[in-house]
Amino acid sequence: MTTTPEALSRYHEVVQAEMRAAFPEVDLPIYDMGRYALGWMDERGQPASASGKGARAALTMLGAEAITDEPAALRRATAGAAAVEIVHNFSLVHDDVQDGDIERRGRPTVWRVWGVAQAINTGDLMRELADTAMRRALLHGASSEAVLEAIRRLNQATMLMIEGQYLDLTFEQRMDVQVEEYLAMVERKTGAMMGVSLSIGATLAGATPEQADALDRAGKRLGRCFQMRDDWLGIWADPDALGKPTDADIRRRKKSFPILYTLSHAPAEARRALVEIYAADLADDGADLPDEQVEWVHNMLGEIGADEATDRAAREEYEAFLEELSSSDPRAAAVADLEELARFTLERDR
Amino acid sequence: MTTTPEALSRYHEVVQAEMRAAFPEVDLPIYDMGRYALGWMDERGQPASASGKGARAALTMLGAEAITDEPAALRRATAGAAAVEIVHNFSLVHDDVQDGDIERRGRPTVWRVWGVAQAINTGDLMRELADTAMRRALLHGASSEAVLEAIRRLNQATMLMIEGQYLDLTFEQRMDVQVEEYLAMVERKTGAMMGVSLSIGATLAGATPEQADALDRAGKRLGRCFQMRDDWLGIWADPDALGKPTDADIRRRKKSFPILYTLSHAPAEARRALVEIYAADLADDGADLPDEQVEWVHNMLGEIGADEATDRAAREEYEAFLEELSSSDPRAAAVADLEELARFTLERDR
Repeated sequence: MTTTPEALSRYHEVVQAEMRAAFPEVDLPIYDMGRYALGWMDERGQPASASGKGARAALTMLGAEAITDEPAALRRATAGAAAVEIVHNFSLVHDDVQDGDIERRGRPTVWRVWGVAQAINTGDLMRELADTAMRRALLHGASSEAVLEAIRRLNQATMLMIEGQYLDLTFEQRMDVQVEEYLAMVERKTGAMMGVSLSIGATLAGATPEQADALDRAGKRLGRCFQMRDDWLGIWADPDALGKPTDADIRRRKKSFPILYTLSHAPAEARRALVEIYAADLADDGADLPDEQVEWVHNMLGEIGADEATDRAAREEYEAFLEELSSSDPRAAAVADLEELARFTLERDR
Repeated sequence: MTTTPEALSRYHEVVQAEMRAAFPEVDLPIYDMGRYALGWMDERGQPASASGKGARAALTMLGAEAITDEPAALRRATAGAAAVEIVHNFSLVHDDVQDGDIERRGRPTVWRVWGVAQAINTGDLMRELADTAMRRALLHGASSEAVLEAIRRLNQATMLMIEGQYLDLTFEQRMDVQVEEYLAMVERKTGAMMGVSLSIGATLAGATPEQADALDRAGKRLGRCFQMRDDWLGIWADPDALGKPTDADIRRRKKSFPILYTLSHAPAEARRALVEIYAADLADDGADLPDEQVEWVHNMLGEIGADEATDRAAREEYEAFLEELSSSDPRAAAVADLEELARFTLERDR
């Protein structure tokens, strides 16, 4: 059992306050849809508490702490932390529309409550609110140059994230996705936002461009590590810890790392059978895989060693993260926290 | 017959080049979907020429010309012109998904070609490309402060535009929309982007914040004028000039200004009949209105004087535009061009 790192909650309140401050005083329900997506409201406009873990906000603040412990600098970084959290949640609102997902964090998704058209609007609005949040760094004393550089980094990372989402959607239609392609997609879809979290925090805290770039590369590795662990948990997690059954990703026919690894390492006959099972998804509109086939796939993954391979891939990314991190010349206190957060990413049960 | 103002084409080539330069050298089809939306490519990736009129780019450049004729300043403004054109086209991509429209500028819409999920992605990506375009003003010599201010203005205007789109979607579900509410929606959905076009051009050319604000207000009025004329053309246009039949908006049961005006001015009985016709749209999923009802509505609009009322509303916005424009202390040469453009907006046949 792994314990949640203290760094995840250290700045939670101040960043949440920054996020709220980005909302204008306009009395239009579209802003409440944004508040719902951020977990602050329920469908009927009543206060709620259903925010995410805030991993990206924590990374932003640790990116700042990697550079300095000066309170004014950390205050500036809170604006960046708010911005990346809002962008991340904007992407979830649009992802849920694109994937047709009906539930997120135990609640109906935005499109499920207000329809596709307003969910697109809500995501679009949140992207704008993120920049509004970022500009609050000016109020906390950041220079125009630093804010413009932070906005540039967020802009570039969001573009990579959208490229990743594009690729992820195309992969659903393909049976020949290679492990390396998958990792390159993950680096964009998940890694880019983690990388930019670290680098924006550092930038607003006064880092050199070289330090920020090194932290950006480190965060991309952490994103890959995060997804590898996610893919491992999607099949081999203890169901009690995860809150959903073991083999969930097999049942949903998700082409995650263990499946792609097995497809490229299985003997020809087993591979053909796997392809048949997964390609059927394209035809029959994504019905769950029947139990006996789930068991067959589970056993096949075991025979090929996909369990160990996925864990090994996650560990490699963890090591690469530590290496990139050290090349950013970070403060020792922040390194300890970042290492703990990365270790948690690698070993978490859920 | 009105002739197209020369100002609409004066900077067309240089702004198009700026827009193209915002695209990164990444070989992913999602960027081609953006090029398709901007009219540069067809569905198969072949070169095409189907761009919009570029009204917002022209406004941006005239906003700059209102401040100075210095070539270096105008060069800086081309980056802003590229940014607003890309944001405008991003909004069209998402609007077409939201409205279920299958055709735009005589071609299938992005979602019609690549599906809803990738159309959402394409719009999201274009929003990022707009900021990338804006930052090119730095390459043309703009200061960090000026670019940050231009980005801020674009951010605020895009938020207003999304508010407008939110309102427009809710109006479809209501039969009690007042003319004033409608104008406030139009000011956001259409006016905000026209206002910010003028003010960004001015800002990048060295305007004071007060000048930029006055131009922003002027552009919002022009947007309202544009929509009033659009609403007029949607019912009373010469079908040969417009390229679609007279009464197109009646047939589609669009609750445009003339209908809302008539709803609030018609005698009780006629009003009830109109409400019945338009409310049916909510139930029967938007089938076209039958010919005899189209004729009845057309005659009712005539009896109430909606034709003159719509034209009068457009002229009032035109006059308000001129007044706000003059309060920005603009250069006389630019005023002549802006007046011509506004007069074209007011009197165009299509």
